[in-house]
Order: sequence, then C-alpha cells, then structure tokens
Amino acid sequence: MPRPSLSPITVSLAEAVPFVGPEAIARHSGVLLRARIGANESPFGPAQSVVDAMAEAARESWHYGDPENHDLREAIASHLGIASVNVMPGEGVDAILGMAVRLYAAPGSTVVTSLGGYPTFNYHLSGYGVQMHTVPYINDREDIDGLARAAHETGAAMVYLANPDNPMGSWWDAKAIDRFIAAVPETTMIVLDEAYGEFAPAGTLPALDMARPNLLRMRTFSKAYGLAGARVGYVVGEAQSVSAFNRIRNHFGISIIAQAGAIAALADQDHLESSVLAVQKSLEDTASIVRRHGLIPLPTATNFVAVDCGRDGLFARAIVDGLAQHGVFIRMPGAEGLNRCIRVSAGTEADRILLDLALGEVLARLRG
Amino acid sequence: MPRPSLSPITVSLAEAVPFVGPEAIARHSGVLLRARIGANESPFGPAQSVVDAMAEAARESWHYGDPENHDLREAIASHLGIASVNVMPGEGVDAILGMAVRLYAAPGSTVVTSLGGYPTFNYHLSGYGVQMHTVPYINDREDIDGLARAAHETGAAMVYLANPDNPMGSWWDAKAIDRFIAAVPETTMIVLDEAYGEFAPAGTLPALDMARPNLLRMRTFSKAYGLAGARVGYVVGEAQSVSAFNRIRNHFGISIIAQAGAIAALADQDHLESSVLAVQKSLEDTASIVRRHGLIPLPTATNFVAVDCGRDGLFARAIVDGLAQHGVFIRMPGAEGLNRCIRVSAGTEADRILLDLALGEVLARLRG
Repeated sequence: MPRPSLSPITVSLAEAVPFVGPEAIARHSGVLLRARIGANESPFGPAQSVVDAMAEAARESWHYGDPENHDLREAIASHLGIASVNVMPGEGVDAILGMAVRLYAAPGSTVVTSLGGYPTFNYHLSGYGVQMHTVPYINDREDIDGLARAAHETGAAMVYLANPDNPMGSWWDAKAIDRFIAAVPETTMIVLDEAYGEFAPAGTLPALDMARPNLLRMRTFSKAYGLAGARVGYVVGEAQSVSAFNRIRNHFGISIIAQAGAIAALADQDHLESSVLAVQKSLEDTASIVRRHGLIPLPTATNFVAVDCGRDGLFARAIVDGLAQHGVFIRMPGAEGLNRCIRVSAGTEADRILLDLALGEVLARLRG
Repeated sequence: MPRPSLSPITVSLAEAVPFVGPEAIARHSGVLLRARIGANESPFGPAQSVVDAMAEAARESWHYGDPENHDLREAIASHLGIASVNVMPGEGVDAILGMAVRLYAAPGSTVVTSLGGYPTFNYHLSGYGVQMHTVPYINDREDIDGLARAAHETGAAMVYLANPDNPMGSWWDAKAIDRFIAAVPETTMIVLDEAYGEFAPAGTLPALDMARPNLLRMRTFSKAYGLAGARVGYVVGEAQSVSAFNRIRNHFGISIIAQAGAIAALADQDHLESSVLAVQKSLEDTASIVRRHGLIPLPTATNFVAVDCGRDGLFARAIVDGLAQHGVFIRMPGAEGLNRCIRVSAGTEADRILLDLALGEVLARLRG
C-alpha cells in the first residue's frame, strides 16, 4: 500500500532515544530501580515551598498558562539583574537547544561541538540536517581554543560549549570563557550551556553581557533547583537574538504548574544554597567510595562526578551494566577516551550505600 | 556589529504569537480578567482525583519523567482499545502538530487546510517553509470534498481537518469523514484533529482504523479533561506512521506531573461525562443569552459556540474588544465570512452573568 513519505531530512533519522530512561531499563531487565544516580537530577528536590506552589497551581490546570510566560520572565530577569527582553523561557533546555539550531543553523550549514559533548544537542543537529564538526576533549576538558579555531575554519553557523561540562564535570574559569567568546567569529552563534552553573565555584560563569549578539546562554531549573520533571529552562542573551525564539517557539509549552514552580524556586534561594552544599557533600562521599574501590574520581564543578575506571570503554560499560543489575542507575560518556569513565550523579545516603555495595560486587566479578 | 544570520526559513517569519493570551490583554489594557471564556478551556476543570495525583507527582519533580511515557501510553491505548504502538503522547497537540509537519512535509511541499482553520497548524507550516493551500468553508463547515480535491490537485504532502471544527463548532458525521479519508490520496498524510471529539454527538468520530498509514488523529487532555495548562496530547494512527515521531520528538517533553494527571484523568470517566454534560448546559444557556441580545448561536459539537453577529468582521471585532473592556475574554474567527461571528467558550454561571451584562452594554453602544 502506498504511504506518505517522510521529509528528506527525517527519512534518514533513526528512531532513537538520546537517553534511555531508568524506567525503561527497569522494565526491560525486570530489576527494580533502587538508586537513581544517572541523570544528574537532584535528590534534594525542589523546596517544600515549590512543591506547595505546584500543588496549588494544579488546581488551575484547567486553563492554559500565560503564553508570554510574563511573570516567570520577570522573575528570572530580576533574579539575574537583567532586563526581561534578554530572557526567554522554554519547556526545558532540550527544547530550547532544538529551537536554537532551527533558528541559527540550516540544512547544509556546519555546527561545531566537542566529540563526546551533549548528545541531545547532536540529536537536534541531525534532526535539522545540520553538519556536525567535532573537536576532541583535551585532558577531559572541552578544547576551547580548538572549538574557536574550528568555528573559523568551518565557517560554523554555531558552536556549542557546556561550562561546566557534561559528561566530564570539568570547567573553565570565566576569563578563559570570555577569551573563547572573543575568539569565535561574530557571525557564529555561541551556545554556552550553563545548566550546571549553580554548582560551579565562584569565578566560573562570565559576567552577563547582554550586548553581544552571538551568545546564547542556557540555564535550567532541572539541576540545582531540583525541577527536572517540570520542564523549565531559559535562554539569556542579547535582546534581538533572544526574541527570535518568538518566531518558532511552542507558545503554550511551559505548563502552568511549571511556571508557578519555577517562580517559587527562584524565591527560595536558601533552598538552592543548601541543595548545592548537599550535592557537594554527597559527591565528596561518592569520591571516597569509588577511591576505596580503586577508581579515580575526577574534579567536578557539577552535580555528578566522572570516575576514571582505568581501563577501556568495554570495562566501564560492564560496570554500568553490572550496577544496573543491582538496580543502581548510572551513565557513562560515549566518546573514545572519555569512555574509560563512568558518571555518577549526586545521590542520597541510601543511594551511596547501594552504590558502594553494588560496585564492590561488580568490580570483584569483573576483576575476577 | 556583524551578527549570526537566521536560517533562510526563519529569517522571513514574524515574531508573532498565534493566540494572544488573556493575561497579556489584561496587562496591556489594565482591565482585570473577570470571565475567561475565549480559549475553549474547561471551567469544570480536572477531577479532584486528577488534582490530587498532580499534587502528589509534584513531589517527584526532582527527577525526569519517563521519556517513553510508557504508563501514559498504555493507559491511553487501553482506554481506546488499541495497541500502545498506535499511540504517541506529546507535550500538547500544538507540539505534535509541529512534529507532524516536520515529519511529513518539507520546504516547498504543499499542505492543504481550510481558510480560517486552526492558526497554530498554519504557524507550523510557515515555520517549516511549507506552502499552504486553503479551501474556503461552505456554510460554516469545512469543505471536505473541496479539501480532498485540493489534496489531489496540489499533490499535497498533508491535509488538515478538524472534526468537530474550531472555530466554527460545526462537524461532519463519521460516514462523511470516512468518505473524506477514502477520497484523499494515499500518499497525502491526513491530520484529523479531534481535540473536541469528546463533546461531539455519538456517530461523529469514525471507528479507529489502525491499518491506514496516511491518517494521524490528534486527541488532547486540554479540552474535555480540563487539563489545558498541563500540556498533554497524543496522536493515534498506524504503528509506523506514529513511531516516526520518535525521530524528532522532545523525549522528556511531558512533565512528570502531566503524565500523572493524564493517567488519573483517564481513570475518572465519570468526571469526563459530567464535564461534557455541564458544558452542554452551559452552552445552551449561552445560546439563550446571545439570542436575547439579537445574535444567532450556531449549532456546536464542541465546548464553545460560534455566534453570528449579523454584520461584518469589524462589527464582530468591536464586540470582542468591547467585551474585553469589561474583563470578558472571548475570541473570534479570523477569515472573511466566518468573521461575522464571535466565539464564546463554555463558562461558569458567573462567566455567563458577566457576559450577559457586558454584551448588553457593548451592543447598546455599538448599535447606538
């Protein structure tokens, strides 16, 4: 039977999930999920005030949220000390990244990113028929000089940099990032993904410069604010570059509950601070655990730690799969070289006890 | 200062909101929103069980929702008596329509819809550089024969039909829709938007035929289930046509709260039935009110009523704007001919009292 054709770009795409969720792993393996420390979520959750605000907003779910996200935009702008024209919220950074690619790249143009960088950004590149040019990490850090150089050499429409970085947890200081920004061609749109910015040491995030047209900075409520399940992120940048999102965005995309939750989250900076501290303590403990098992935790400015397992990607993969059999969900970098590591998110004490036990058994088995 | 270029398609798009929200109208006019009867929302809200399920899920917002939406998909499939491979949930029908256009049309291809049909679908067509071919309504109904003919004549990649229709509230019975489906070329993807299907009389929705590759049926939790603010819709169709959405969808797009709310909503069919009845009563009362004011309510199979104001688009627009000055938010069709009407959503008794009063004052002023 004849059928409608898929478009020339989508016909060649795979039906792939960039990240398989722990729920799917549990469904396929039949092993109950016991420690959820693979998706860089915050077990310290949203504040109680945020949960309350969301429960209250649930009653209002009969009507659409404000498509201009006015109050949320104002709250973010006021929190950052910038104008609301420099802020555009969206239904999670994943969605915003897709829109950025759609706006600032096109089929046939080239976009530069790191080999082993954020897979969902790459998913959008293929999804919109954009050519991806990758630059390898150097010493587990994104190669900012190499990225800027590649942007010049390829005439890149965009260049992507995560600072702090996922999946390695590494970071550059604000001075280095500013040098990188200055080195990229003015016609190349820089996507500076700061999803983990709240966890980074002081001096990591450059000052907010709202005058530069070729810089989009991505922020999220999913990580430090503990609202991954709510779907709210935002982009910050020069007014015209940011307002371009109005051409294509899903206007009613952020649920009324998520808008209320994000506004409440910004209002509770004490909870944010205590979450960031809790994450740091948690990761210090995780680092001790993996060290005791003979693995090497890398420095991190995020809510996860990349752990060097000292051998190849197959070995690290066997650890990830082995832990999954114990109901301990973690992930690992995909790129050659980086894939000697596993990536463990900050968890609760219970999560770490389970990790410790499972890691002991898995490594004993693997090391024979 | 040089700046990054927008892509060839997005550079020509307007920074327009397809629907200005009542919040924005209130902000700009300074008039408090008193009756929200313009966006076809349900003032009878989600069930208490749904609000409770969402409040409960708010506590789980620290982690991402299942990117496969497994439980929601199963619940929808079981509710409809079809297999879960024939169902794909998304973050509202608006988002799903955008993905459908991206999958099944392409820059330069032609898509057929009605002149005056759903603006957000048209927004996606321009957003993806697709040529739109429109067919006028006949007697306030979408011209199904004309749409099928236009699909043949233009070699359309897609054809869009809403049944029941928004903004006119009119509908075709299942037999007519089946005839339309059979008349469209097998290589043209039919988007059958059934967002208002739960309000329609028995015999309006065709039986679910999961074997036809060129039919995507859109359903939502925003209307009869009273969850507009939560952002959940789904598409139903032949397995391969539906699973193609996996190539481009925003996997984590549906919030964990919305997933829980939608599952709870399906489980409470009593609330659905009582909401549908309440909507019908509400609209009967609205019809009496507008009749008393000398306007003519059109038949409706939805949760709103189109009201013929007996004059041109300027007159209807003056009524909409006049009501807004009284804090009564309604909308109206945009297309010539249809724009002799205003469109009033089902409201509470308080909404209708406000409508009645405001309409009297506005019409007295306009009729001088």
